[in-house]
Amino acid sequence: MTIKGFGDCPVPRTDYDRILLGHGSGGRLTADLIGKLFLPAFGGANATALEDSATLTLGEGGGRIAFTTDSFVVRPVFFPGGDIGRLAVCGTVNDLAVAGATPRFLAAAFILEEGLPLADLRKIAASMRAACDEAGVELVTGDTKVVDRGKGDQVFVTTTGVGVFPPGRSLSIRNARPGDRILVSGTIGDHGVAILSVREGIEFETVLESDVAPLAGLADTMLTACPSIRCMRDPTRGGLAGVLNELAVASKVGVRVTESKLPVRAEVRAACEMLGLDPVYVANEGKLVAVVPADDAERLLATVRKHPLGRNAALIGTVTDGRAGFVTMESLVGGERVVPVLAGEQMPRIC
Amino acid sequence: MTIKGFGDCPVPRTDYDRILLGHGSGGRLTADLIGKLFLPAFGGANATALEDSATLTLGEGGGRIAFTTDSFVVRPVFFPGGDIGRLAVCGTVNDLAVAGATPRFLAAAFILEEGLPLADLRKIAASMRAACDEAGVELVTGDTKVVDRGKGDQVFVTTTGVGVFPPGRSLSIRNARPGDRILVSGTIGDHGVAILSVREGIEFETVLESDVAPLAGLADTMLTACPSIRCMRDPTRGGLAGVLNELAVASKVGVRVTESKLPVRAEVRAACEMLGLDPVYVANEGKLVAVVPADDAERLLATVRKHPLGRNAALIGTVTDGRAGFVTMESLVGGERVVPVLAGEQMPRIC
Repeated sequence: MTIKGFGDCPVPRTDYDRILLGHGSGGRLTADLIGKLFLPAFGGANATALEDSATLTLGEGGGRIAFTTDSFVVRPVFFPGGDIGRLAVCGTVNDLAVAGATPRFLAAAFILEEGLPLADLRKIAASMRAACDEAGVELVTGDTKVVDRGKGDQVFVTTTGVGVFPPGRSLSIRNARPGDRILVSGTIGDHGVAILSVREGIEFETVLESDVAPLAGLADTMLTACPSIRCMRDPTRGGLAGVLNELAVASKVGVRVTESKLPVRAEVRAACEMLGLDPVYVANEGKLVAVVPADDAERLLATVRKHPLGRNAALIGTVTDGRAGFVTMESLVGGERVVPVLAGEQMPRIC
Repeated sequence: MTIKGFGDCPVPRTDYDRILLGHGSGGRLTADLIGKLFLPAFGGANATALEDSATLTLGEGGGRIAFTTDSFVVRPVFFPGGDIGRLAVCGTVNDLAVAGATPRFLAAAFILEEGLPLADLRKIAASMRAACDEAGVELVTGDTKVVDRGKGDQVFVTTTGVGVFPPGRSLSIRNARPGDRILVSGTIGDHGVAILSVREGIEFETVLESDVAPLAGLADTMLTACPSIRCMRDPTRGGLAGVLNELAVASKVGVRVTESKLPVRAEVRAACEMLGLDPVYVANEGKLVAVVPADDAERLLATVRKHPLGRNAALIGTVTDGRAGFVTMESLVGGERVVPVLAGEQMPRIC
């Protein structure tokens, strides 16, 4: 069984008639659900934007704004390096930032399980406030619902963000051209491995922390220094491989990555080996991927490395003419392999 | 035990250290949680807007927009007259409409429980699309998360809306003045009673249906015909009593309502008696309350009654000088009673 438009890789199950955990993976099953259920239902000119943040023109002198929403259901709610509150603010801020917009306003809707300790909610709210201050956004409206014990899981947070596009800024995942270089702003896999190591009870000599951070400042610095950037994405659910595949399909180009160039912490690599994971599929919450014309690549890299959130940035690959729609990776031993989209469920409730 | 700023009525429990179902009631416990936890955490100039839709100025030629979010956790997901999808669109559209804004764009975030039948999700999506078309809004961005079986309850939907204010329009819950009249656009209690009658298995000769409907058209007709309207609100969780108390406190006025003027369907009245409920506390999802200068009241009433969603509209009361901060009701037998905010939990998961 294959699905058109998302490469031609086999899918474990598409004859489902019920929701599977993998529908929330950010991989092929998620795309399948969107393509087969949500898009036909919602249709309309803007419907293809369902997967990402939307660009809205308010008309009559109103500028263009970016608009994006995300629910956060991460488990555990508190994890090394952050909590669901920080994640909910950063996740939405980052979607606006990588679209090229300046994040301005947030809405937060809480679904609380009866019995949640107030002290936990207070910590989460404080952490959201701190992340908002860090990102320069204002939380301006909210909602609270409570569900009976056993009908939720402590707390779910949905954040929705509004950002403003500076005049003339226009990034698109369709803009990549052969010859462009691909930059990642730091080590990959930190968030997913931090969550999994808590869940699986794996211990390391140093505590593995999530990279969850607001990228608004870094994105702005990059776009100011290098307005030629074609597009940016934050590789969250589905990991780096998800973003690169999206790019390959949307821009109708090939993407070729060199494995030895991928920045991965030694502890993350060790944990991935132990858990049988490939870091390219592991979620990040404080990293971005940028596509930039080759001539500007080294200058952009230098700029990113000067930023506190970009110290481990690297140029990891190239956009190619051939193999349009595919991501390939030159492995450490020199071979080449295709890196498909994550097929089903790898890590449920990672964000 | 009393809470300042919300009348001086006794509260059943404020020494909670865990989330109670009543924190989602839209009544006093919800206000308490917002006042004691969220506002201190989020602070800031716009923080008082946490209870409702926010007005944002985008600056540099950008107009004013309205921005609001709501999670929907109603149980059952399908009910007479609607489902969680229609509710999620109408609820957010109505928050924008009663603020005086023209609803334009929606974001929808789904939290699905593993095992949810796809057929149910398809029905919900179709119903959202129909409600969007009815309301004249476009669903432009979305998100899907999946939680393990037993950690959610079929489907939760969070919708966030952006509306645009026509130039010069400015409504505020603080604007009511003594002498103003209070209009309700139709029968009260229909939504809450429809949900409860399904849950409790109560049957009537005619099926009791929720009133869930988008009010954008009605609100616009009213504001065009009668620009002097001081403010509007949709009496959802917490019911008519909740909205009138909010008005009395925010405008520092008294509100006096005549019970005999309240439009209530006979079946709803009967169900309320059976369940021990007062219809003024029961949720509505297709009604609005408007405050209007006395001179324009009859003309506004005539306008509303011509609209399909306003046929049973009525003028139900008056804004008074005395008893500031309180809502009183002249009862059917001529006596007068105070109508406080709903104290705790009356009907969990009504929306």
